[in-house]
Amino acid sequence: MNYRMVLYTTGKIIGAEAVCLLVSALVSLLYWEISGVWLLVSALIGGLLWLASRFFKPEDEIFFAKEGLVTVSLSWLVLSLVGALPFYLSKEIPGFINCFFETASGLSTTGASVVENVELLSRGILFWRSLTHWIGGMGVLVLVMAVAPSAPGRSMHMLRAEMPGPVIGKLVPKASTTARLLYVIYIGLTFVLVLLLLCGGMPVFDSVVHAFGTAGTGGFGVKADSLASYSPYLQWVITAFMVIFGINFNLFYFILIRKFSAALKSTELWVYVGIILTAVVAIFCNTFFMYSSWEEGVRHASFQVAAIISTTGYSTTDMNVWPTFSKAVLLLLMFMGGCAGSTAGGLKVSRFMLLCKEARTRIWHVLHPRTVKTVKFEGKAVENETLYGVSSYFSLYVFCLMTLFLILCLEPFDIETNFSAAVSIFNNVGPAYGAASLNYGAYSWFSKLCMAFAMLLGRLEIYPMLILFMPAAWSKK
Amino acid sequence: MNYRMVLYTTGKIIGAEAVCLLVSALVSLLYWEISGVWLLVSALIGGLLWLASRFFKPEDEIFFAKEGLVTVSLSWLVLSLVGALPFYLSKEIPGFINCFFETASGLSTTGASVVENVELLSRGILFWRSLTHWIGGMGVLVLVMAVAPSAPGRSMHMLRAEMPGPVIGKLVPKASTTARLLYVIYIGLTFVLVLLLLCGGMPVFDSVVHAFGTAGTGGFGVKADSLASYSPYLQWVITAFMVIFGINFNLFYFILIRKFSAALKSTELWVYVGIILTAVVAIFCNTFFMYSSWEEGVRHASFQVAAIISTTGYSTTDMNVWPTFSKAVLLLLMFMGGCAGSTAGGLKVSRFMLLCKEARTRIWHVLHPRTVKTVKFEGKAVENETLYGVSSYFSLYVFCLMTLFLILCLEPFDIETNFSAAVSIFNNVGPAYGAASLNYGAYSWFSKLCMAFAMLLGRLEIYPMLILFMPAAWSKK
Repeated sequence: MNYRMVLYTTGKIIGAEAVCLLVSALVSLLYWEISGVWLLVSALIGGLLWLASRFFKPEDEIFFAKEGLVTVSLSWLVLSLVGALPFYLSKEIPGFINCFFETASGLSTTGASVVENVELLSRGILFWRSLTHWIGGMGVLVLVMAVAPSAPGRSMHMLRAEMPGPVIGKLVPKASTTARLLYVIYIGLTFVLVLLLLCGGMPVFDSVVHAFGTAGTGGFGVKADSLASYSPYLQWVITAFMVIFGINFNLFYFILIRKFSAALKSTELWVYVGIILTAVVAIFCNTFFMYSSWEEGVRHASFQVAAIISTTGYSTTDMNVWPTFSKAVLLLLMFMGGCAGSTAGGLKVSRFMLLCKEARTRIWHVLHPRTVKTVKFEGKAVENETLYGVSSYFSLYVFCLMTLFLILCLEPFDIETNFSAAVSIFNNVGPAYGAASLNYGAYSWFSKLCMAFAMLLGRLEIYPMLILFMPAAWSKK
Repeated sequence: MNYRMVLYTTGKIIGAEAVCLLVSALVSLLYWEISGVWLLVSALIGGLLWLASRFFKPEDEIFFAKEGLVTVSLSWLVLSLVGALPFYLSKEIPGFINCFFETASGLSTTGASVVENVELLSRGILFWRSLTHWIGGMGVLVLVMAVAPSAPGRSMHMLRAEMPGPVIGKLVPKASTTARLLYVIYIGLTFVLVLLLLCGGMPVFDSVVHAFGTAGTGGFGVKADSLASYSPYLQWVITAFMVIFGINFNLFYFILIRKFSAALKSTELWVYVGIILTAVVAIFCNTFFMYSSWEEGVRHASFQVAAIISTTGYSTTDMNVWPTFSKAVLLLLMFMGGCAGSTAGGLKVSRFMLLCKEARTRIWHVLHPRTVKTVKFEGKAVENETLYGVSSYFSLYVFCLMTLFLILCLEPFDIETNFSAAVSIFNNVGPAYGAASLNYGAYSWFSKLCMAFAMLLGRLEIYPMLILFMPAAWSKK
C-alpha cells in the first residue's frame, strides 16, 4: 500500500470540496445569511486539510487497483465528514450524526433526509446540500481527474472503481480525456436543464438547486412537498431529465460526435425505455381513478417511475397512499436503477439484462447439456468471467441489502417501512414507504449511521467500501 | 423426447398415489366417514389412469436429462390434480382451484392452506392431506424408484432433478439402492417420531398426522391453532424432529453404518446448527417479555425457528404479533431453508455457504487480481462450474420470487403480507404475516393458481418446472 499516495490524492479531493464549499458560502453571503460564515469556516477547514496533505507528496506514484479502491472509498468517507461541517456548525441540522447522514445521502446521490421541514433551512445550506448531489453524481474523482489529469494507468484504476455498472466503454484512450469529456456533457446537460426550468417560471435559486438534484439523480429540493407545488410543465421537464440522467453517458458522447446510429443501437437504452413505459402504463392503470384528469394521472405515474428508476427520488404525489401494486412496481424499480455509466444508482439495467441472459442460458444448458451457448450483449459475446462477476456481485448485493434490512428491523417500525427503507437507501433512491415516507428522522442514531454507510456502500458498488475495512488492504506489501 | 417413456413413468407414479389414496380411504372408513367413499372413488380414478398409462409401454427405455426433468415436473402437476379429487368430490374444500392449491401445498411440503377451520374436516381427508406431505417430502420419485427399481443411468437423471440442493453425495453406486436406503431412513425416523408423540399422550391419529407433516417438513395439522394446544413435551419433540428432518439425509446414512466422525465432520451441519442457535437467542432476547416464564420463551423461540428454517411451518404461538426484528429474522430464515439432501425447502444452507464463499473469494480477488484462490466446501475444492451454477440459480430464484411478489400485489393486501406470502410460498414454508398469517383463503383464484405453481416451482428447484413449459423440451429430437 502506497500510503502517501492515498493520503495525497484524498487531500486533493478535499481541496476540490473546499472550493465547492466556498462557492456555497458566496451564495449564502449573497442572501446576507449567517450560515455563509459557517460555510466559509468549513471551506477553510477543508483547505487546511488539503494543505496538510501536501506534506505527503509521494516519492513514487505507483498506484495499483488496491490503492485506487482505498482512495475512492476513503475520499467519500472523508468528503462526507468534512461536508457535514456546515450543517453542524450552523446548527441548522441538530447532531453530528444527522449532519453526516445528510451529507452521505447528498454525496451518494441518495436524497434521503433527516430534516423535518426543509423550508426552514437557509439558502446557503440548501445550495450546499444540493451541490453535494452534483459533486457526487458524476463522481468526485472524475471531477478531480478532469481538473488535475494524472497518468493514464493510474486513473483507469480509479475510474473503474468509480464508474457505475459492469460495462465501461472506453471512449478515448486517455482516462483524463474521458473524464473531461464526461464532465463537459454533465455540465452541458445541467445548464440546459436550468434554462428549461427558468423558462417555466421557476425562480433562479430553485432552478439551480433542482438541476443539481436531478443531474446527480439525488433528490434534495427546497420544498417540503418536493416538486408537488410546481407547474405541470416544470414537472414534465424534471421527468424528462431524470430519465436522461439515467442513460449511459457514452451515448451522449456518441450523439456529441454525431454518431446517432451508434447511440440508438444500444440495447440497454431500449430495455431501459421499455421498462419505464411498461411501468408507467401499469401504474397509470392502477392509480388513474385517484386523479381528476388523465393528464394528471399520466404525469404523476411518469414522474414517480422516472424518479424511482433513475434513483432520484423527487415526488409530485404521495406514493405511500397508492395501491399496493403500484407500490410494489416502484419497489422493484428501486432494485433496477438506471443504465450503467449514468449517475443513477441501483443494480443497473445492464446488470439486470446480463443476469436474465445468464439465467436463460442456464435453462438452455439444462435441456442441451452438451452444447455451448455464448451470451451476447450489445452485439458482442460476453466473457464468462464477466457473467460470473455479475452473478456473484448480485449475491453480495442481496446479502448487504438483507443485512441492512435486519439492522433496521431493530427499530419499532413495520416490515414494509424497514424493507422499503433498506431497498431505497442501499440503491441510493431516497424515499421509502410507511414511517420512512417523509424523512428518516424517526430512526435511531445507530440506524442512521448504518444507513449512511450503506448509501456509500451502494453508491461505490460494494467492493471498494468493503475493502477499506479489510486489514489485508492496508498491509505494506 | 421419448413421449411414451414419460407418460409410462408418470402413470406408474399415479398408480403409487392411488395406493396412498386407498390407504386414506381405509382410515376414513375406519371412522365410518362418508369421505371414505370419495377417497375410494379418487383411488379408483388414479388406478384407471395408471392402467391407461400401461398402453404407453415404451419400446426403448432411453431416458435423458430432458425426459427426467419433464417426467418429474409433469408427475408433480398430475399428482396435484389427482390428489385434489377427494377434497373436491367430498365438497369439504369448496372449488377445484382451492383443492388444487391444498394438494400442491401438500405435495410440495409447503403446508399453506385455504381451509378456514381445519377442525371441520373429516379424519380421512385430514389423513390424506397430511399424507401428501409425507409422499412429497421424500419425493414421489424416490418412493417409486424404491418400489420399482429401474436402470441406474435412467434413475440418476431423475434423482438429480428430485434431490434438493446443489450437493448430492452418491451413497452407493446404484440409484435404486440409494433410493431404498433413503426410504428406510425416512420411514424409520417417522416411526420413531410417532412413538415419541404417543409417549407424550398425543392421540394415535394426531401422532401419525403430525409425524407425516414433520417428516415431509410440510406443516398441515389437525387443529386450528396448529400445535399451540399440545403439551410442552410434545412441542419440544416436534421442534427436535423439525430440525432433524432439515439435515442432509446422507448424514443419517453415515450414522447408520456407524461412521459417526464422517457425519460430524459436515460443515453444513454445523452452520445449520449455528444459524438455528443464533436465531433462537436473537428471537428469545426480543420476545421473552411476552411470555410468563423463561421456559415458555425459549420453547416458542426454538419452535418457530425450527419450524421456519426447516420450512415446516407449524406454530405454537402467533408470530404475527412478535416485534419486527423477530419477524425479520424468521423472514430471512425462510429464504435459507434446511440442508441440501433433506426434505426441507428454501435456498438450502449449502447454497448459502457457497454463495458466501464465492463472494469472499471475489473480494479477495479484487485485492489480489493476479492470484488464484479455490473455494473449498466440506474439505474438497469446488469446481468453478458448480459455483457459477449456484450463483446463477440464485439470480433465477430471486427473479421468480419477485415475479410472484408482483402478482400477489394485485391483491388488496399490504406489502408486508404479500412479500412474506411470496417468500413463504416459494420456499415451501407455509405461514406468512398480516392477512396471510392464518390461511390463504382471502386471495383470489388467480393468485391461488399462481401460488400453487410457485410452490411446485420452488419445491423442484425451478429448472424442471420451467422446462415443462418450453416448447424446446417437447421437440422430437
